Amino acid sequence: MQDYHVVIVGGGFGGLQLANDLKDVPVRITLIDRRNHHLFQPLLYQVATTLLATSEIAWPIRSFFRDRPEVTTLLAEVVGVDSEAHQVQLKGGQTIAYDTLVLATGATHAYFGHDEWEPVAPGLKTLEDATTIRRRVLLAFEQAELESDPAVRDALLTFTIVGAGPTGVELAGIISELARTTLPKEFRNIDTSKAKIILVEAGPRVLAAFAEDLSAYALKALEALGVDVRFGKPVTLCSAEGVTIGDSFVPCRTIVWAAGVEASPAAKWLDIPADRAGRAVVDKELRAPGKEDIFIIGDTASVLREDGSPVPGIAPAAKQQGDYVAKVIKAKLAGKPAPGPFRYRHQGSLATIGKSAAIIDFGWIKLRGWLAWWVWGLAHIYFLIGTRWRIAVAWSWLWIYISRQHSARLITQKETMHED
Amino acid sequence: MQDYHVVIVGGGFGGLQLANDLKDVPVRITLIDRRNHHLFQPLLYQVATTLLATSEIAWPIRSFFRDRPEVTTLLAEVVGVDSEAHQVQLKGGQTIAYDTLVLATGATHAYFGHDEWEPVAPGLKTLEDATTIRRRVLLAFEQAELESDPAVRDALLTFTIVGAGPTGVELAGIISELARTTLPKEFRNIDTSKAKIILVEAGPRVLAAFAEDLSAYALKALEALGVDVRFGKPVTLCSAEGVTIGDSFVPCRTIVWAAGVEASPAAKWLDIPADRAGRAVVDKELRAPGKEDIFIIGDTASVLREDGSPVPGIAPAAKQQGDYVAKVIKAKLAGKPAPGPFRYRHQGSLATIGKSAAIIDFGWIKLRGWLAWWVWGLAHIYFLIGTRWRIAVAWSWLWIYISRQHSARLITQKETMHED
Repeated sequence: MQDYHVVIVGGGFGGLQLANDLKDVPVRITLIDRRNHHLFQPLLYQVATTLLATSEIAWPIRSFFRDRPEVTTLLAEVVGVDSEAHQVQLKGGQTIAYDTLVLATGATHAYFGHDEWEPVAPGLKTLEDATTIRRRVLLAFEQAELESDPAVRDALLTFTIVGAGPTGVELAGIISELARTTLPKEFRNIDTSKAKIILVEAGPRVLAAFAEDLSAYALKALEALGVDVRFGKPVTLCSAEGVTIGDSFVPCRTIVWAAGVEASPAAKWLDIPADRAGRAVVDKELRAPGKEDIFIIGDTASVLREDGSPVPGIAPAAKQQGDYVAKVIKAKLAGKPAPGPFRYRHQGSLATIGKSAAIIDFGWIKLRGWLAWWVWGLAHIYFLIGTRWRIAVAWSWLWIYISRQHSARLITQKETMHED
Repeated sequence: MQDYHVVIVGGGFGGLQLANDLKDVPVRITLIDRRNHHLFQPLLYQVATTLLATSEIAWPIRSFFRDRPEVTTLLAEVVGVDSEAHQVQLKGGQTIAYDTLVLATGATHAYFGHDEWEPVAPGLKTLEDATTIRRRVLLAFEQAELESDPAVRDALLTFTIVGAGPTGVELAGIISELARTTLPKEFRNIDTSKAKIILVEAGPRVLAAFAEDLSAYALKALEALGVDVRFGKPVTLCSAEGVTIGDSFVPCRTIVWAAGVEASPAAKWLDIPADRAGRAVVDKELRAPGKEDIFIIGDTASVLREDGSPVPGIAPAAKQQGDYVAKVIKAKLAGKPAPGPFRYRHQGSLATIGKSAAIIDFGWIKLRGWLAWWVWGLAHIYFLIGTRWRIAVAWSWLWIYISRQHSARLITQKETMHED
């Protein structure tokens, strides 16, 4: 059975979980990703806001499989699937044959038909996105320190975050703390604590996925950090000069996009139906409809809970789906009946606001404030893969907590645009 | 006297030492650098070879001066000096007036009239250089894993380092260890331990600045690590296909340039004589000849020892020069006579070969082997600025030592050329 070949596309939470679960199962595995690293995405906003370094939340995918000779890792970009020929097509023309294919290719940020905003309003999905945002935020303060025109200085010291989901709230909170706590003593010509951090939410509240009282608490915590939260009006224009909220223009040199996601093109590769966000609609066993040997999991799959609500695009959901597909493959190889349909178990929702407040909704208990923050921190350290990084991240956080100094404030790589 | 304005250009070892020494002296200081970070350059090769992360060897310059309100840090590029008007000219048109100016602008790598080689043979002076080299080295192994043509695969698995000074030797040793120790278990289609690491030296021996017996030991240590050291012939061509050594062509996809340095254009700004490497020739008090208020220190100054030999371009030399200029300024402000001419005290030379051998020449004692390696490691940890980073770097090294895993193996940023 070592000839049975499982091809997994995507080394995110879902793909890695599946590959781990298939240990000791008599299959060959090829894991393909266009990046060489697995990214611990829930902490990516901390790289964007100078709390953590890139290498603290990303690790070479192939290093996880050192001791599993049956796993081949390829750094390559998949551009299509030929489900008739049972082949994956790589950029450059190579093909890889599969017996079972699992697409776990994730999602990227979406601009709702305004892709032209991307250069001025980067989103946050990759390490490069995070270092781009970090560079722009830090450069804005640096340029303000040199600037003599008060209007330009004010625009440089205005930061707009679009979208008040977990990422937007996390970014706004930390940028505000950076400006108000870490930086003031380091600048001589500007008062960084006067920086304006604007969080724009088209809907009526922040963190809409949480219960209303937790949402209200998060709003208060944001306002206590000095974040200017604006509800009910969408962003209608992003440019190098500023942002238009509803029909009022705010001069602003730094915009971060945290408003929408779009699935990777797995559904297009297979020519199967997708939902509005491009997620492939799968059957109850997470299969591409009508294609027995192709599974789709994680952020690129549209999966419904038993109550008809969508499974959220979060790491635990992707991992559960990876677990489930491993069970289906094992059952098939063992000639046993398939497990029942996939069932998502929601373990809870967590979000942080700055460096001392958080909200947690486990269903059976709700937490908020500093206790929630500590639970959040311990949970994330627990889930970090690899002892070395657990210790490194814990150490970084402890240092920040004690010293109030951020450790990862490097401006690297040249900006190809958006420079003054 | 708080109106006395010292402008320091460059936040390297010399510039920072000077600014530190001027604490409690009644002067205003403006420290200008075109990067936002001080770089611990002696460990830069460890970032290029995946041992350390960027944030472990670089720190925001302005963070050093949080508690010194008389120090203003500016992220800006100096493009000229008007010594008549006592002004520094910034890119963008701004000018900064000075009473005393200290140019500590360092050096970059040089291609001896072959600047066209830079895209295919990057040097190692900045964090971006280091991540570029890291990306190319890691991508070469990744592409080899996918490659079916044996000739192309061999070229991908050939790494040429040009120049066997400390940087070249360090890079060659670690890349060879990476290929032979860290990576073999992670690849399935290639044997990374068969990778060819070629170190090209036009002269007759490696680490020519050291005594001959230490040089000979270093050569043996390199060969034990599997490095192919080639003497006596210069590189005559670098291209995307390979490197020509003397007149023999070696197919090779990764070239690193460690062969020469060129000073920053301080001498040109002042229109004063420079040596062959572009270093400004200064007087015995490190002043630009004929310019009472302008000092030049570090890698951009040509300074001779008492025996007529040049002061080496290393961190301790730059620091001693920063110390010296601080004394001259203090004496001047106190109305005291100037100290005697600058005298360089050579404290010793260190170089490492891989992760367990090193050579040290303190003059009064020579060390080599694992003891030298530990002395080297402790010395570097001692000199790292800031408790946090000492601990972080010590931890990274200890982890590598125990686990034989490198911690910073991220491929980030897109390559704009040199891709297949």
